[in-house]
Amino acid sequence: MKKQALNLSTYTSKNMQFLKNSNRAAVIRALALKKASNRTELAVYLHLTRMAISNIVNELREEDFIRESESETPCFGQPSNGRPPKQLTLTDWSITSICVNIRRYSVSCMLMDINGNTDFHSSSQLPKEADNQILMDTLIAQIGDIITKASDIPIIGIGIASIGPLDIYKKYLLNPPDFRNIRDLNIGEILEAHFHLPVYLDNDMNCASLAELFFGNGISRRDLVFLGFSSGVGAGVIMNEKILHGFGGFAGEVGHISINPFGPLCPCGQHGCIELYTMGDNILKNVGVKTFDELNRILDAEDPPQFILNCIQEYLNAMYSLVVAVANSYDPDILIMGDIDSVFINRFIPELEEYMNSHMLNHGYKHIKILPSAIGNTAPLYGAGSIVFQRVFDGELALTPTV
Amino acid sequence: MKKQALNLSTYTSKNMQFLKNSNRAAVIRALALKKASNRTELAVYLHLTRMAISNIVNELREEDFIRESESETPCFGQPSNGRPPKQLTLTDWSITSICVNIRRYSVSCMLMDINGNTDFHSSSQLPKEADNQILMDTLIAQIGDIITKASDIPIIGIGIASIGPLDIYKKYLLNPPDFRNIRDLNIGEILEAHFHLPVYLDNDMNCASLAELFFGNGISRRDLVFLGFSSGVGAGVIMNEKILHGFGGFAGEVGHISINPFGPLCPCGQHGCIELYTMGDNILKNVGVKTFDELNRILDAEDPPQFILNCIQEYLNAMYSLVVAVANSYDPDILIMGDIDSVFINRFIPELEEYMNSHMLNHGYKHIKILPSAIGNTAPLYGAGSIVFQRVFDGELALTPTV
Repeated sequence: MKKQALNLSTYTSKNMQFLKNSNRAAVIRALALKKASNRTELAVYLHLTRMAISNIVNELREEDFIRESESETPCFGQPSNGRPPKQLTLTDWSITSICVNIRRYSVSCMLMDINGNTDFHSSSQLPKEADNQILMDTLIAQIGDIITKASDIPIIGIGIASIGPLDIYKKYLLNPPDFRNIRDLNIGEILEAHFHLPVYLDNDMNCASLAELFFGNGISRRDLVFLGFSSGVGAGVIMNEKILHGFGGFAGEVGHISINPFGPLCPCGQHGCIELYTMGDNILKNVGVKTFDELNRILDAEDPPQFILNCIQEYLNAMYSLVVAVANSYDPDILIMGDIDSVFINRFIPELEEYMNSHMLNHGYKHIKILPSAIGNTAPLYGAGSIVFQRVFDGELALTPTV
Repeated sequence: MKKQALNLSTYTSKNMQFLKNSNRAAVIRALALKKASNRTELAVYLHLTRMAISNIVNELREEDFIRESESETPCFGQPSNGRPPKQLTLTDWSITSICVNIRRYSVSCMLMDINGNTDFHSSSQLPKEADNQILMDTLIAQIGDIITKASDIPIIGIGIASIGPLDIYKKYLLNPPDFRNIRDLNIGEILEAHFHLPVYLDNDMNCASLAELFFGNGISRRDLVFLGFSSGVGAGVIMNEKILHGFGGFAGEVGHISINPFGPLCPCGQHGCIELYTMGDNILKNVGVKTFDELNRILDAEDPPQFILNCIQEYLNAMYSLVVAVANSYDPDILIMGDIDSVFINRFIPELEEYMNSHMLNHGYKHIKILPSAIGNTAPLYGAGSIVFQRVFDGELALTPTV
C-alpha cells in the first residue's frame, strides 16, 4: 500500500461504541450458544485479542451478566500450569424475557432467562367465542401477572410464538385458519403500547427450532431443521445459527410439497401435499384410533392388523420423501422431529435416518442425524424467549445492567 | 446504567483496524449491489455518520476504488439546492477476479471486474480421455494466459463454478457423475500453489444465483432462488444476499424432491424425482425432438400433435409442484429460471407465476415474481467471479490499492 497509514482517529466515538456493543453482544452470544466457555476460547472463537476479551468480560462481570469460576477439570488442549481456565457462565436471571405461545385453543406464558431457567408459568384455554379482544385481554392479564410477580427481575422483551400466518415484521397476526374469531390483529403494537417492552413475533415452528438450538438437541449445531407434526407439518430452519425467514417470513412450509399430484385435495389448493400423509392427526384418523398411546399399543402387539401396517407403510413412504426433500433443500447437519408423540416417532427414526442418508442426492459425503425433540410440546414457548435473546446477539436490544 | 461511561481507549488498534476494514468492505458492497449510489444513501443504508462515510469514501477515492461524479439528474427526495448529489461508482477494473466455469464437457475462463466488465475469454472442450491432469493443465494454461495478458490489472482471486458434488470448504472436486475420468481433485490447493492467488469454489447453480444478484434479474433483491434446468434440475438459493449453503454446501438440490413415489427410478435412488419431469434434456427426449428450436416451432404451429400437448401438460404439472415447493421452502421474493431455452421457458412463465402465487401456502400475503435468467448460460461463469467479490464484502479478502 503506497499511501500513508490510515488515520484511525477520524472515526467517531459513535462507531467505537457500536464496535464495543457488537463485541459485548458477541461474547454473550458465544456463551449462550455454548461456542466458548472461557476467555481463551472466546478469543479464538471471536477472533479478538485476549486483551479485548478481558476488557469485555471484566465489564460484563462487573455488570453481573457473567460469572467466572474455577473449573473442576483441566481443559483439554490448554497449557497445563496447574490452574485450569476459569469457566464463564451467564448469570441466571440477568437476561430475561417473557415467553408467549399462542396455540389454536390456548395461550401459555412464562418468564425465562437466557440459560433456560423458567418461572411464573400460566396457561389459559381460548373459549369458543374468543375474538381479538378476548385474546388480548387474556394475554395482557397473563403477561401483567408475570411482570408483577417478577418485579425485581429486569425483563428485556416479550417473545411470541404463534400459529400462522403472521407478518413477523409488522408483528401482526394475519388470518390463521380455524382460529376461533381471531384474525387481523396487531398484537405487537398493542402489547408494546401496554407494557413498554419490545415485542417480537415468530411462527411456532421457527421458535421451536430456535429453542432446540438454545436448549435442546441443537445445542452447538449451526444448521438444523426442526420438523413439527401435529395438525399440520412445518419446518423451522436454522442456517448459520439464525432462523431462515425468506422474504416475507414464510419459509419452511415443507408440509406443502406435493408428493402426489393425483392425491387428495389439500386446503392449500394443491393435491397430495406431504402433510396430508404425515401429520399426526391424519395418522390417527387413517388408522382409526383416538390417541398415539392406543396406536403404540397396537404396534407393540404381536400381530398388528395388516390394514394398520399398510397405513404405517404409507405414512413411512411419505416421511421418506419428506426427510429426503428437507435434506436436499436445506442440507442441515441435524433434523429434529417434534410436536408428535415421542414413543411413536422414536420407533421410526432409525429407518428414516438410514433412508435419508442413503437417498439424499450427495449421499456418502455427509451424515445427517435425526433426533427427537428434546423439549417436546413446549419448544415453541421456549423459543419465544429465544427470539428475544437473538435480538441481543444482533445488537438490536441493548443489555441493561442492574448492578 | 449505573456504572461509569465505558472506557473506549482500552480497545486495541487491531480492533479499530477491523472496524475500519469492515466499513470499507461495507461501502464497496453497498455500491456493488446497488444498495446506495451516493454518500447520503450510504450513510442511511449502513447506519453510519456522514462523517464516517466521507472518511471511507475519500480514502477509497484516493486509492481509486471509487469514482465520484456530478449526477445528470437531481435525486428524488433530496433537498434541491441546485446541486444534485455526486454519484459514486466503483472504478472499472479496480477490483477484478478470474472466473472459471467447469462444465461436463468444457471449461471456460475470463477476467471480470466487480462491475461485470469482462475480458480475455477462453474456452476449451474436455477431450473424452480427460483426467485430473488434463483438466488441471487446461486450467493452468488458460488462467496463466489471462494473468499474462492482464499484467497491469490487480487480480484479487480465482473463482470456480463447477458441476458437483464439491467440497466447497476444502475446494475439492468430489465425484461428479459422467465427468470424463475426472474425480477426487484438490483443484483449489493446486491452483493456489501455482498462481499464489486465493481460490474459491462453488457449484454452478449457486454461482448462477449470485451472478443474477450482482448483474442480472436479481439486482437489488435480497432473497432469490435461481432454478437451473438442463441435464438436471438444481437451485442456487440467495437468502439475505448470501448463498444458502447448508452444513456441507449441498443445499438447493430441489430437483430431487420426489413428486411421485411410483414414478421412474432416478439415479439418486428415489423414484419420481421432480428433475426427471422438468429437466431440459428429458423434455426433448419425451417429445421426441432434438432441439428446443424444433419444439418451439411445433408449439407455435397451428395444431400441435395431442401427444406433444400431453407431454407439455405433464411437464407443466411437475413445474407447478416445483415452483410451489420452492416458494414454500424458501419464500424468495423472486424466482429466476435459467439454463434452459429462453423462448421455451418464457411461454410458460406467466402461468407458472400465476399458479405459484395462488397455490403456495400463504398466498394472498405476498407475490413472488418469476423471471427468466438475464445472463443465460454464462451465469455460472459470471457468478464464479462474484464468489470472490463476496469475500471482499465479508472482509476475508483485503483490497489492494494500486495507486
